[in-house]
Formats: sequence, structure tokens, C-alpha cells
Amino acid sequence: MDKSVFLEDMDAFAYRDALSSGEAIVLIPVGSLEQHGTHLPLGTDTILSRHFAEGVARRLGALVAQPIAYGYKSQQKSGGGNHLSGTTSLDGTSLIAMTRNLVKSFLKQGVRNVVFVNGHFENYQFLYEGIDLALEESGIGPGAKQSVLLLSYWDFVSQDTLAQVYPDGFPGWDIEHGGVLETSLMLHLEPARVAMDRLVDGPAAVLPRFDRLPVVPERTPATGCLSSAAGSSADKGGLLYDQVVADLALDLVGELALEPAAVPA
Amino acid sequence: MDKSVFLEDMDAFAYRDALSSGEAIVLIPVGSLEQHGTHLPLGTDTILSRHFAEGVARRLGALVAQPIAYGYKSQQKSGGGNHLSGTTSLDGTSLIAMTRNLVKSFLKQGVRNVVFVNGHFENYQFLYEGIDLALEESGIGPGAKQSVLLLSYWDFVSQDTLAQVYPDGFPGWDIEHGGVLETSLMLHLEPARVAMDRLVDGPAAVLPRFDRLPVVPERTPATGCLSSAAGSSADKGGLLYDQVVADLALDLVGELALEPAAVPA
Amino acid sequence: MDKSVFLEDMDAFAYRDALSSGEAIVLIPVGSLEQHGTHLPLGTDTILSRHFAEGVARRLGALVAQPIAYGYKSQQKSGGGNHLSGTTSLDGTSLIAMTRNLVKSFLKQGVRNVVFVNGHFENYQFLYEGIDLALEESGIGPGAKQSVLLLSYWDFVSQDTLAQVYPDGFPGWDIEHGGVLETSLMLHLEPARVAMDRLVDGPAAVLPRFDRLPVVPERTPATGCLSSAAGSSADKGGLLYDQVVADLALDLVGELALEPAAVPA
Amino acid sequence: MDKSVFLEDMDAFAYRDALSSGEAIVLIPVGSLEQHGTHLPLGTDTILSRHFAEGVARRLGALVAQPIAYGYKSQQKSGGGNHLSGTTSLDGTSLIAMTRNLVKSFLKQGVRNVVFVNGHFENYQFLYEGIDLALEESGIGPGAKQSVLLLSYWDFVSQDTLAQVYPDGFPGWDIEHGGVLETSLMLHLEPARVAMDRLVDGPAAVLPRFDRLPVVPERTPATGCLSSAAGSSADKGGLLYDQVVADLALDLVGELALEPAAVPA
Amino acid sequence: MDKSVFLEDMDAFAYRDALSSGEAIVLIPVGSLEQHGTHLPLGTDTILSRHFAEGVARRLGALVAQPIAYGYKSQQKSGGGNHLSGTTSLDGTSLIAMTRNLVKSFLKQGVRNVVFVNGHFENYQFLYEGIDLALEESGIGPGAKQSVLLLSYWDFVSQDTLAQVYPDGFPGWDIEHGGVLETSLMLHLEPARVAMDRLVDGPAAVLPRFDRLPVVPERTPATGCLSSAAGSSADKGGLLYDQVVADLALDLVGELALEPAAVPA
Amino acid sequence: MDKSVFLEDMDAFAYRDALSSGEAIVLIPVGSLEQHGTHLPLGTDTILSRHFAEGVARRLGALVAQPIAYGYKSQQKSGGGNHLSGTTSLDGTSLIAMTRNLVKSFLKQGVRNVVFVNGHFENYQFLYEGIDLALEESGIGPGAKQSVLLLSYWDFVSQDTLAQVYPDGFPGWDIEHGGVLETSLMLHLEPARVAMDRLVDGPAAVLPRFDRLPVVPERTPATGCLSSAAGSSADKGGLLYDQVVADLALDLVGELALEPAAVPA
Repeated sequence: MDKSVFLEDMDAFAYRDALSSGEAIVLIPVGSLEQHGTHLPLGTDTILSRHFAEGVARRLGALVAQPIAYGYKSQQKSGGGNHLSGTTSLDGTSLIAMTRNLVKSFLKQGVRNVVFVNGHFENYQFLYEGIDLALEESGIGPGAKQSVLLLSYWDFVSQDTLAQVYPDGFPGWDIEHGGVLETSLMLHLEPARVAMDRLVDGPAAVLPRFDRLPVVPERTPATGCLSSAAGSSADKGGLLYDQVVADLALDLVGELALEPAAVPA
Repeated sequence: MDKSVFLEDMDAFAYRDALSSGEAIVLIPVGSLEQHGTHLPLGTDTILSRHFAEGVARRLGALVAQPIAYGYKSQQKSGGGNHLSGTTSLDGTSLIAMTRNLVKSFLKQGVRNVVFVNGHFENYQFLYEGIDLALEESGIGPGAKQSVLLLSYWDFVSQDTLAQVYPDGFPGWDIEHGGVLETSLMLHLEPARVAMDRLVDGPAAVLPRFDRLPVVPERTPATGCLSSAAGSSADKGGLLYDQVVADLALDLVGELALEPAAVPA
Repeated sequence: MDKSVFLEDMDAFAYRDALSSGEAIVLIPVGSLEQHGTHLPLGTDTILSRHFAEGVARRLGALVAQPIAYGYKSQQKSGGGNHLSGTTSLDGTSLIAMTRNLVKSFLKQGVRNVVFVNGHFENYQFLYEGIDLALEESGIGPGAKQSVLLLSYWDFVSQDTLAQVYPDGFPGWDIEHGGVLETSLMLHLEPARVAMDRLVDGPAAVLPRFDRLPVVPERTPATGCLSSAAGSSADKGGLLYDQVVADLALDLVGELALEPAAVPA
Repeated sequence: MDKSVFLEDMDAFAYRDALSSGEAIVLIPVGSLEQHGTHLPLGTDTILSRHFAEGVARRLGALVAQPIAYGYKSQQKSGGGNHLSGTTSLDGTSLIAMTRNLVKSFLKQGVRNVVFVNGHFENYQFLYEGIDLALEESGIGPGAKQSVLLLSYWDFVSQDTLAQVYPDGFPGWDIEHGGVLETSLMLHLEPARVAMDRLVDGPAAVLPRFDRLPVVPERTPATGCLSSAAGSSADKGGLLYDQVVADLALDLVGELALEPAAVPA
Repeated sequence: MDKSVFLEDMDAFAYRDALSSGEAIVLIPVGSLEQHGTHLPLGTDTILSRHFAEGVARRLGALVAQPIAYGYKSQQKSGGGNHLSGTTSLDGTSLIAMTRNLVKSFLKQGVRNVVFVNGHFENYQFLYEGIDLALEESGIGPGAKQSVLLLSYWDFVSQDTLAQVYPDGFPGWDIEHGGVLETSLMLHLEPARVAMDRLVDGPAAVLPRFDRLPVVPERTPATGCLSSAAGSSADKGGLLYDQVVADLALDLVGELALEPAAVPA
Repeated sequence: MDKSVFLEDMDAFAYRDALSSGEAIVLIPVGSLEQHGTHLPLGTDTILSRHFAEGVARRLGALVAQPIAYGYKSQQKSGGGNHLSGTTSLDGTSLIAMTRNLVKSFLKQGVRNVVFVNGHFENYQFLYEGIDLALEESGIGPGAKQSVLLLSYWDFVSQDTLAQVYPDGFPGWDIEHGGVLETSLMLHLEPARVAMDRLVDGPAAVLPRFDRLPVVPERTPATGCLSSAAGSSADKGGLLYDQVVADLALDLVGELALEPAAVPA
């Protein structure tokens, strides 16, 4: 078995060895517990962000911390809405606070770069704020050796990959919730956790250009998915996963001035 | 002079008359105090969101509250970064708290619909969270008569308008900061506050697909603008403003089941 | 036109020039959105504090930031009470948080002195707390070059002025809400925003020596004003404004060891 | 011995008997731990507010809760400043939070009226905010049977008493810190805790009309008192105490529609 | 394969079926990321609490939510201290906030009983507070159908089991950190994650009866364990696990008036 | 009379003298306002912790600050529950905030060691968190001269004393609420505040191994005490008090490297 990249599996002394170079990178996957239609599990966002973090960590010789497994509230325009059972979310201030704590702690321990790998759209700004507060409180400003990166994995899907995954045209990231991207990735990475026989096809959701609160529940399709997962495949998932991990690792290597680790994905 | 739509100009008794129908709409512009390059004033986002709110209010017979004039921290990928002098921002929790207070107060006063008209990209999620908390604390859930809407004005720019404003192709919303859209709108609405003679042309910023904190200051162009404002004009601003106000008003009328007010923009 | 002293009108580069001396002063007006009777607009406190800040800024060569346009809850003994429609207020913690953010940001940008010009009685202690927290977090203690001042404009009205404005005796600051002082100032500074024909005369409110919550609504006069504005005049407003601006500017010059700017009010 | 009016001395069953009428009043003294010059103890504000609460409680048949013994930060214009050793204070949000907790708890237990008896100037607004939040969270609005009162004991000193205590003219409440009022009251109520032989005479402090932070330490007299306590006497203290207790009790009886209790002070 | 009891594996529709009876129980494991000596992984507390939750859930037909994988700060007297690298913790307020969010959300979704299964000593009071706040905000008081239970798994270890696991006498729960109990449980449940060859024997830590902060680092044994794990075995782990799961399930069945589910552990 | 060790009785200048050595110790008693059965007053925990602090202070030449007189919520398993009238508690965050403020203030004033003497079980973790936050914000880490200690007085009761106080066997600390320990201590220290004639005997409470919220009120004995106080005596109280004060003082002297003060208890 490959040596684990997951902090939860390492003992404190092995971890301290990893820190001793002063160059350690810790990736923190961030997901949600959120309804993802009839065919995908509630943990989809956390499962996927953890896989992306693992893939990148293996390439970079980095470590993967425990995921943030509960995310910010699902919004109707990007996740169907927070009113749907199964979706179990944190307030913005809770997510900010947890992020702040983790960043401060890892930086204080001597981690050089903390990288948040986000898999749930709604989290992004609250993670950003938690990072910003942590850096201010830690006295880390421009020019410091330590830094924190924040990214959502789908921002690394290339145009070429998109064209292959969506041969009939990409419907847009905003309604990619329980759709072809997430389903294909799950089919590739966690096929036992996908129930393609339960998948319900249907047209993509059409949502207004504003958010309305309280939500109008009828605007979310009955499946909870904003676009159909029909056309998903493990092959598409493999294509997506490999391309994103490769590009993401490449970007991080360039950004953090590291040599790629010898360990293949 | 047109009767003012601004709450700050109304006396409490006139305001109570406006509330008495039970159908009052209050729009809250949200902006920032943020550097916008050499040619636009620090208040650009607040100025523009206030104008959009006013235009829509006149069409709908709605009211415009005092703007939220300080916004969430400018991010390097959308506003150049919070490290630049002139940019004066709120923590996420401060913006959430203020939003929550305003929503609770206006709904308690009997306003039927509160509409946030956002003009600063980074604000969105914090406004959303403030609204969500306010509704929960107010006991307002799906099916209630009262509701809150949240939108950013640029989401109402049509493809057709974009094609006219950017004849050489639209560079993307993410780097529209101090660029052709904002500059043209200011030239149309507040020409005295624009210094086109100070405008510095240059290539659009190329920013990574992740956020890095602390920021790498050199990534922001020296002008503070993420794309060039060359090619801006008052005519383009007029086109943008009129189209957005018309479509936004139309959407709100449909959403809120109102008859358009007789007063033209 | 005079060069604007308002930050919202300046571009970031002009602002940085103003900072470059290391002696910049930024005044922050603080008001409220609060009922002010039948004859004054809801924005009265913000409008007046902004005018005082502008007057002082012109004398000192200082700058004026965007006002804090929503204030702490109106209290029955000083503003009629927070239960009256039109009065739209912030929680104490929200106002503290915003104040803390603004002070920290301006000081970090290199502003030497931040001066809060308060126009709404209830704000004072929350502004004070926000300032105190900001200074502690910024590591600024006694002897530092940078400092923050906090004042309410009415504390600069001289005995002589009072005697002229209230020839029959001054009723006390506590019930000066929508009364002769505010009305006269508005008549002088913003006559188009005053509706003297809607003014309702009546005796001054008599309020107990304690605060009671929930309020007993009947204790607030039907007009929402705690003392009558009868006897107000633009002349009195001019007298008040000129005397306060002059004395306030003089005090600040002495305090901050500045030469008065050449620009007259 | 008189039956104790202090909650800390009562057992829970006796307390429940007192609640059973549905008319119970609980007074909460609020003070500070704050320097009070060379001759008065650090606990002066708490000691005095507790005595006033006790005196009123005996007249009204009310109860006295444990004091809030740490108050908001001492301000230079009213207490000499928070930088002076011995002064040990709470942040505004801490005081708001504690107040909110106490009000919610006592009202939930069935106390009809909670009365805060304040003895430290700087506390007032934070107590007000804590009360307001508690009532909102408890769903108690205008017309409810339960209510909360907030007062500072010096607001009940009559003009006649002032004239007797300050035969040469009253210097103003703002600089009454460690002066004749507090010293006389302590001489009357707690003579063993006053060291008149250590009293240092001197002119009253002259402080600007603004607050400056960080404070300019030299502005506070070396004694820490803002006005001299020379001329204090136990007789003046007795006069002050008896008049205030009587008037305060009378006001509360009227306000709360109670018959005065038979027990004399 | 057994049907998963883990929410992260279920789709939203299967979860809603489970809720439909109105009798659903959700267990939330709570752990930490904390150094556990040379031979146990950083995730030990989370791993163990998740196993206990799973065992109980299988007996009760209950569900297991995503664990809270980061806990409150490790204290020197119970976990070696928060200063040790690898220990990555949350502030108390962050843990309270997250707990509050989860309880409110699950109860709102219709879960009848939420049960926190704690595996990290320091968490307990913050979980308790989060639960209490959530119930108050949800309006759930004594007599309600819904309830929340909070327990630490070691409180269910019987005297008889203790005697078998510690034949030479039980050293006390306070220093059971990385000792025989946790090690034996890990050997039984996750043998691949234990490195018995790295175990360092040594005397139990002797710690004072007070907490001192900042910690005196030398008081924690170099291994990070407070008592030796020598004598641990998978058999002891099996005994512990089976007894605790059985008793815990029995207690919950009695408490929640349920029939034990047919599924064996 | 002995010179007072209580800060509330000292003047600021005497206190500054005490600080001038750089070796000052300030003890902060922490209690609660909580039902303690039929025979003990609501203030029992505060009264006892204050006495222990006083006893230790006299031996060490230390000072005693004003107690924290309201504590964290009473839990059913250790205090009968927070639903019982008379029990008046703070939220966890309020107690954390106050503790943080006090620690920061005393350390900033130059106190070398702050020692919290806890008398209410439920407070402990919130005090710990407040201390930890204060030290971090004050920049005080391992090796610093200043430190904070936290202890509960019952952790210093020796086995020998326990055997004498409970000749029939010690029932356990968890149900020592209003029982023999607290009652005996009160009989020794404050006999006038104990009503032994009101004492109700009965069996000890049997409580589950979990906390359930909302509480099941019937689980708390009608007396509010978790174990009977029958068998209490002033002699036992004297034994307990003297042994604990002696041991506690000895431990502190050793820990803080002080010579015992000459003043006997």
C-alpha cells in the first residue's frame, strides 16, 4: 500500500518529520453534506474534494488534512437550496471561524503552504475570509514565506476537457450540481457510491438572475439536481480527474517553486 | 423636481404612507470604497449601485434606502486586492451583521420586499448570509408574503448589450474592475466624476486560477484596473444603464407580481 | 467648483498623494436613518454630520470618508424610540464592528488622524468601543503618532450661541430631537429637504429619568419630535453651523498641531 | 437582623415563594473595578450601586441580584481612563452579552420587572443594548406585563440636594469621579473603606470636548480623580443617599404600579 | 455488503425515507486531530468515535453523520497539550457554533434524536453549549418529542471491563491518552493504523491538580502519551468495544423507548 | 482588623504598590448563582470560592479580585439543571469573553500570576478557553514570566479528608451538589447563611451516563440537591477548608516559586 498522505493516518512523529524541512504543504479538502439528487450520496462534495486533494498531494509530496465535511448553506441557484432534507450546513460565521482556526494552527506548526481544495461552490467567500483573518492575526503579510492558497477544483477543468465531457455544449458551472461532471467523477472514483439506476433525467433548471429568500421551493427540480446527469461515464470522470489533478499540481508546483515529487498519482 | 425615491429625503410620515399599502418595496444599494484606477473615484461601486437602484425604483414606484457604502474586502482576482490604499473594507462578519439588521428592521416595519442591488462583486455571499439569518430570526419561511431579493446589476447585462459594448469580445466579468463597463456607466451617469485624461491603457491582468494570501502585490497592474477602460464612452454607458434598468425592473415586476409604475426612468 | 474633500469622489492616486505627507486627516461622519418628525427627512443626522465634517475638512485641508449612514437604535429619551417606522438601526455589535474595521483600515493606509463626527446621540459609546478595539489590535498606544478622535458636533455649540438660538432658555440636549437646533441647521444647509409647512408645534416631551424597555409608545409625542421646532430659522442654523465649524476646527488644529488650511469654509 | 434582600443569601425555595405572586422585582446593581483616587477603594461604583439597590429594595419589597462587578472601560473624560492600574474592565460586547443573559434568565424565571441600578457612567449604553436584545429574543414587546428598567442613580439627585452638597456650585456630572458625591456617599455608607487622610486636593480636571484615543495620560490628574473630594462629609452622603433612595423608590412605585412596602429603608 | 449507516453514503431520497417514520436517530461522532504518541495516528479520537457510533447505529437502526473531525484544544492534563505539532484544534466558540448549526439543522429536517458520541475529552462542554443554544433557538423545551443526547464513550466502560483491561489497576481516565484503552481499541478496530513497534514504554505522567497556561512543555512526556500503552491488545480492544457498544445501545434503547433493531453489530 | 486582601477594598495607589515588586498574584474566585437545595443560599458557589481564595491569599500575600458571580449553565448531572428557578447563568461565550477580558487586563497591569479559584463545576472549560485566548492575544507563550492557573478547589481535597468527611464512603464528585461537602463548608464559614432546619434528607440522585437536553425535569430530586447533606457539620467544614487551603497554598508556592507569606490563614 502507498504510504498514506492523510494526516489522520499519520502519527505525530512522522508528521513532525514531514514538517522538519520547512517546506511542508497541507491540503485541506472542503465539501458539504448536501443532497445531490437520487443517484449521488450526500457526501459527494467532500468525497470529490478529498480525492482531488489526494491526487495532488501524491504528485507534490504534500499532506492532506481532515476535510471540512459540512459546508456553507446550499443556495438554490447553485445547489438546489438549503431547505431540502439531507442538506446540513453551517452558518457563514461558523465556517469562517473554523477556517481561521485551521489556518492559524497549521501555520503555527510550521506548515509552509496551506491549500484549500474546495468542492462546494457556496463555501468560497467564507473560506477566503477565514484565511484573511488568520493571516492578519498571525502577522503574515506580503513577502512572507508562508502562504495560503484557495481554489475550487472545477476552475482547473480545461476547455478541451469540457468539450469532451459535454459534446453538446457546456450548460454552465452554476447549474452543475449533481450533473455530468460530479456524476462522472464519482463513477470514476467511487463507483460503488453511485446509483445510476436511480438517476432521473430531465431538463436543466432555469433559475432567475437573482437570489430570492425565502426560496420558492418549486424552482428546484424534484430531483434536486440542477442539470441532468444523463451522459455521465466513468471515462469522462477519469478524463476530468486526471486533467484537473495534473494541471492543479503543475500550477501549485510553479506557484510554490517546488520540484514535482517522484510519486505518481 | 421629481419626488425623491430616497429614504434619506423622506420624512417618517410620508414613509409610513408609502408603507400603508402593505406592498412597499425598498431597494438597498450596496457598494464599496475601493480603488478604481486612475480615472474613477473610490466610490464607484456605491455610486453605480445607487443609480441602478434609483432607476429601478422610479419604474416600480419603489423606495431606495441609504447605500451600504463600505463593502467586503477587495480580492485580487476581482478588484485588485485589499492591500491597495483607498480600498477601505469591512470584515465578512461586519457586513453580515449590518445586512441582518437592515433586513430585520425593514421587514418589521412592514416593507413587503427588500431588494439588495449589489455593485461590488465580493459582497455577494455575505449579503446572502445576512439575509438568511434575518429571515430565520424573523420567522419568515417559504410561502410568506414578505421576501428579500439579492442581485448584482451586471447579471442583467444582456448578450446583445455585451456585444455592442465589447465589439472585440468580452474579457470576462472577473476582470471587469475599472474597465469599460464601469467607466462607461460613470461617463453616462456621473461624467464630472470621471477623469478620462488620467486613464492609463494597458493589457488585461492575467491572474491565476487560485486566490493566494497574502497577495503577491505585483500581480495587480500598477493602475489598479484589471482590464483597460480604453474604448469606454457615455453612449455605451447609456446603453448599459437603460438595458439593465429595463430588464431588472421587468424581472422584479414579474417576480413580485406588480404593475409597472407610471413614472418613467 | 471647489475640489472635493470627499473620498468617494477622489481617485486612489489622488488619495495616495494626500496620504504621502504622513499628516492626512480623515473625518468620518456618523448619523442614522431615523424618524425626525413631520418636517425633517429620515437622513437628518447623517446629512448634518456630513456637513459639519465637510466644513471642518475645508478648513483643515482634511478628507471626508463615506458616512456611517445607519446608527445605533434610537432611544425613547433621546430620539423617540426604535419602534417608530422609518427608524432603521444597527445592533451595538454591528456598529462596533464597522467602526473597528474602518479605524484599522485607515490607520493601516497611513492616515495620521481619524476623526469621527457624530450626529446621532445613541452612537457614541459603540463608536468609542470600536475605536478602542481597533487601536489595541493595531498595537497603537499612548505616545503613538497616529490617533483617533471622537466627538458629537453639539458639544461644540457655545453658551453664547445657545442663548441666541434659544432666547427663552435651552430645554436641554436630551430632548433636542427634531427641535430648533436640527431644524435650523437643516434650514441653513438643506432648505429643500425641510417642510416647515408640515411642522407641528407642541409642548416638549416629559420623559422619566430611567429607560424602560419595551418602550411605552405613548410617551413619545405623536410628531416623533421631543421638543418643538417652532422658532427655527435659517439664520439660527447659519449661526450654529459657523460657530461650531470654527470652534471645532480650532480645537482640532490645536489638538493635532496643524496649521489651519488656507481654504475658507 | 433584617431579612436579606440579596439573592445570594436566599435559598431557591424562598426565592420561588417570592416569585409566586407574579409581581417580583429584581434589582441588579452595576458597577466597576476602577481606580477612584487615593482615598476611595477600587470597588466604589459597585459598592454604591449595591447600596442604592438595597435601599430601594427594602422600600419596595424587591430583591437584589449579585452585582455586575466589572464594568465597561473607564473613559478619560468620565473616569480618568482605562490605562490606569487597578481599572479592570470588560469589552462592550462582554457586558452586552452578560446583560442579555441575565435579563433573559430572570424574565424566564417569572420575574416581572428587572431594574438595573447603574453606578458607573460608561456602562449605560451596553446595558441598554443587552436589555434590548434580551427582550427581542424573549418575544417581549410593547404592552407586555414584564419589563426592564435602566437607570443611573445620580440622575435622581434633586436640584435641591445638589445645591446643599455643592454650595459653591456643581461642577458637572462628567467630572464627578472620586469627587464630593462619591466620597460623601462612601463616608455615609462605608466609612471604614474611605481614607480621608490620603485625600489629595487639587483643581478639577479640564478635559477637551472630544475623546482622544490612545489617551494622553497627562490629561488625567495624578490623583486619578477628576474633581476634588475636599468638602465631602458623611452628612452630605446621608442627604444624597436618602433623597435618591426615596425619589427612586417613588418613581419605581409609580412606574410599576406598586404599593410601597412597609419596610423602611 | 451491509447497507451503509453513514449519511455521506446515502442519497437524499433514501435519507428522506429514513426520516419519514418520525423516529429517526442520527449519531454524530466527535473527535479531534491530535497527537497520540508514536504509535497511534492523529485521527485516533475521530476514528474511534466513528466506530462506536457505527456499532450503536447498526444495533439501533440509526444513522451516522459526518464526524466533527477537529475538536477543542488539547489540554495538558488530558491530552498532552495544544502546543504539540499535529494537534490542530478549534476555539471553543467555533465548536459551539458548529454544534449549534448541526443540531438545528437535523432537528429541522425532522430527526427525532440527535446523539453526539464524543471521543475527545476536551470537547464535552462546548458540545453541551452548542446543543443548549440550538434547542433554545428551535423553541424545544422539556416535554418535546425531539431531544439531543451527549455522551463520551468511555463513560460506558463497565467496572468489570476495566478490571480485565487493567489487571494491575486503572490509572484514571484523566491520563488515558494514547494509553491501553485507545491503543487496544485501535488494535481491534484499525490494526493497520497502529504501529506497535514504535510504541515507547514509560511511566505515567504526573500532572498537577491545576491547569497552567502557558503550558510547561516538559510536563508532557516526550512520547506525548500520558500513560503507557504497554499491555494493549486487540483482545482487550474487542472486549472494550463490544461491551461499550452493547451497553450504550441498551441505554439509548431504554432512553428513547425503541425496540432494538434486528441487525447485529 | 487584618488588612484586606480584596481588590474592591484597596485604593489604586495601594494596589500599585503591591504590583511594584513584579511578583503580585491575583486570585479570581468563580462561582454561580444557582439553586442549592432548601438549606443553602443561591450564592453558595461564589461564597465558597471567595473564602478559599481569601484563605490562600492570606497565606501567600496575594490579592483577591471581585468574584465572577454568575457562572455557566447548571447541568442536570452536576447541578440539578438550568431549568430550576434561582439558577441564573451565563452562556458559554459570555463567560469566555469575561474571562478573556480579566486575564488580559490583569496581565497588562503587571500582575505576574492570575489564579482562577473555581467553585462551580460547569465553569471550568469556559474559563480555560478565556485564559487561552487572552494569552494568545497578549503574546504570552511557554517560558514567559507571567502565567495563569486554573483550579477547582475540590480537586485539592485529600483522600484522608474524604475518608473523614464521608465515613460511609464518598458518593463521587459528580453528585456533590448541595451535599455534605458544600454544606459542611458553609456551616464552618457562613453558618448564618445555612438553614439546617430546612434540610431535606433523601437518597442520592441516580443520573444516566449521558446528558439529555431538553432535561427531563423529574430526574432532579425535588430538593435540587443531588446527594443528601445529612451528616454535615461545621467540624467537617473546618477540616475540609483548612486542609484544602493548606495544600492549595503549598502547591501554589511550589509552582510559583514563592516563599509562604508570614500572615497565617
